[in-house]
Amino acid sequence: MTNKISLISGGAGFIATSLISELVLQGKRVVAVDNLSNGSLDNINALINTGLVHFYASDLSSDASCDDAFSFAKEIGSVDEVWHMAANSDIPSGVSDISVDLKDTFQTTVSLLKAMKSNNVKKIYFASSSAIYGDLGETRLTEEIGPLLPISNYGAMKLASEAIISAASESYLDEACIFRFPNVVGFPATHGVIFDFIARLASNPNELKVLGNGTQQKSYLHVSDLVSAMLFIAKKESTGKIKLFNIGPIDSGVTVKWIAEQVVKRVSPDSDIFYGTEGRGWVGDVPKFNYSTAKLQQLGWSPVMGSEKAILLAIDEIATQMGF
Amino acid sequence: MTNKISLISGGAGFIATSLISELVLQGKRVVAVDNLSNGSLDNINALINTGLVHFYASDLSSDASCDDAFSFAKEIGSVDEVWHMAANSDIPSGVSDISVDLKDTFQTTVSLLKAMKSNNVKKIYFASSSAIYGDLGETRLTEEIGPLLPISNYGAMKLASEAIISAASESYLDEACIFRFPNVVGFPATHGVIFDFIARLASNPNELKVLGNGTQQKSYLHVSDLVSAMLFIAKKESTGKIKLFNIGPIDSGVTVKWIAEQVVKRVSPDSDIFYGTEGRGWVGDVPKFNYSTAKLQQLGWSPVMGSEKAILLAIDEIATQMGF
Repeated sequence: MTNKISLISGGAGFIATSLISELVLQGKRVVAVDNLSNGSLDNINALINTGLVHFYASDLSSDASCDDAFSFAKEIGSVDEVWHMAANSDIPSGVSDISVDLKDTFQTTVSLLKAMKSNNVKKIYFASSSAIYGDLGETRLTEEIGPLLPISNYGAMKLASEAIISAASESYLDEACIFRFPNVVGFPATHGVIFDFIARLASNPNELKVLGNGTQQKSYLHVSDLVSAMLFIAKKESTGKIKLFNIGPIDSGVTVKWIAEQVVKRVSPDSDIFYGTEGRGWVGDVPKFNYSTAKLQQLGWSPVMGSEKAILLAIDEIATQMGF
Repeated sequence: MTNKISLISGGAGFIATSLISELVLQGKRVVAVDNLSNGSLDNINALINTGLVHFYASDLSSDASCDDAFSFAKEIGSVDEVWHMAANSDIPSGVSDISVDLKDTFQTTVSLLKAMKSNNVKKIYFASSSAIYGDLGETRLTEEIGPLLPISNYGAMKLASEAIISAASESYLDEACIFRFPNVVGFPATHGVIFDFIARLASNPNELKVLGNGTQQKSYLHVSDLVSAMLFIAKKESTGKIKLFNIGPIDSGVTVKWIAEQVVKRVSPDSDIFYGTEGRGWVGDVPKFNYSTAKLQQLGWSPVMGSEKAILLAIDEIATQMGF
C-alpha cells in the first residue's frame, strides 16, 4: 500500500466527501482535516471505515494548527500533496464581516502554505471560485480577462489565496492547480440555493419566499463532474508552474425561478412561490454571469451533466437527504 | 480653512512625501501616519511646520492602531479620505518570509478598511503595483488581462489588497481608486536600484556588482509624475465604483546595465561594473515587462519625463541625498 498521503483541508465538507471517494478509488491514502463548522463526520464515516482515510479535527487557520495536522499526517505516511478545500461557505455572512473570509478562506491558505514549506510538501490543489471575477455583466469570463474585481469578501479572499499560491509557486512549490469552481450542487449539501429552498419548504410547505426577483441566471455543476474535472486537470502534464482553469458546465445556466419551480415540484407541489423585486439576492451576489470553460474543454474534458440535469439530480439527492 | 482631513498611511515614506506636498498646495489638511520603519520624519518636517500636516507614529497593521490613528485625526478635523501608501517596500525580503508582506502590505489594508467602515469614511486611494501582473513575458500588460499570477509575496499582497478594496466598494465605499505603480524613482529614496548602486559605490568606489546580467529592462517613472497622475485620476468623474489604472511612462524602459553605467558616471566614474549571469536579479524579480498605460493616456494624462530622464534626475537627486 502506498505510503504517500493526500492531505485534504475542509476534508469533511461537501466537495471533499466526493473528492476523497475518488482519491481512495485511485489507491490514495488520505488525511482529512476539518474544523467541523460546516462539514460533518457523518459525510466521511464510511470512507474512514475503509482504513484508507484518517480524520483529524482542527481549524487550519493558524500556523500552529497546520503544524499539528502535518504532524498527525506524518505519523501515518509521507505527505505528498495538499487539496485545499477549506473555506467559509456562507458567502452572505462574509459580506458584512470581513473577518469570516479573512480567517476561514484566506488565513487557511497562508498557514497551509507555510506548513507545506516547512514540511517540504510541493504540490497544492486549490478550490478557487468564479467569484474572483466579480460582476462583469455580459463579459465572457475566460481565464485571460481582467481586471479581477470581486464584489464579496469571499471572492476577494479566494483571489488573495490564488495570489499567494502563485507567489509560492515561484519560490518553492513544484505544482499548483487553481480550480475556479462554478456553483456546485449535489449531496451532501450544507448550504446553497437548493438546500435553502427545501429548508424553507420544510418549515412552511405552503409558500416559498425567494430572495431577488428570480431572474438571476447561473450555471451549475454537479459535484461528481467537479471532482472528475479536478482529477483530470491534476493528471495532465503542466506547461507552466501553475495550472489554472475555470471549471463549469458548457451551458449558460438556469434561472433561480426555474430552480424554485423544480424544488416545489419535487418537495411541495402545492406551494406558492413569492419573489422579491431586486435583480440580485444579496450584496455580493452576481446576478448573471457568462462563464467560459473553453480552456478546459480544449484540454479534453466535458461534464456529464449540464446545469438542468445537475440541478434536477441535486434536488432529488438533497430532498432525500432532508427527509422528503 | 478646510476641516476635511486626508489621512495618509505610509505618510513619512518616499511617495507620501511628494504626495503630501501636492495635497497641501491644494489646500488639504493632512494626517500622516507611519511606523517609521522605512519612512523618516526628516522627509516631512518642513511640511509639518506649515501647520497643515500632522504626524502620528503608528503601525497600521492592527485594528487597534488604526482606530487610534482615526481618533487622533478626528481631534483635528473630519477624515474625508484615506491615501493608503503603507506597504513593505523591501520586495526581496518578503520573498523568503511571507509574514512581512502579509502584515505590512495586506493587513494594513484590511485594518484601514475596517476603521474606515466604522468611522464612515468612504473614499480610498490605494497604491497598488505592476507586480500584481507577475511574469507574463512579452504580453502587453493592460488592465484588461489575466490571469493575475504574481511571483512575489509583495505582488500577491498588493493583489489581495485590491481584491478586498473591491469587495468593500460593493458594500460601503463611495469611491476607490487603485493605482498600479510602475518602478518609481526620485527623492527621498529609501530603497531601489539607484539607491542600492550608490550605496555599494559608497562602500567600494572601485567596483559595482550588479545582481543579474543587466539585461532586465523596466520602465521607470519619476515620483513627481506619479503624484501628478494620481491626483489627475482622483479628480476625474468615475464611471464605475472603482477607478483602476496602470500608471507609468510611455516608453518601454531602460536596462539595468544602462542604469548602472549612469550611476557610475555620476558617482564614481573610475569604477568597474561586474554583472551576474542570471536573467533576473532575485526570485520574484520580473526580468522584462511590457506595461501598458494606454488607458491613462486616453483619460488625458501623460508624464513629463520618460524612463531615461526620470532615472537621470533621480540619480542626481539620490547622489546628492547620499553626499555625492
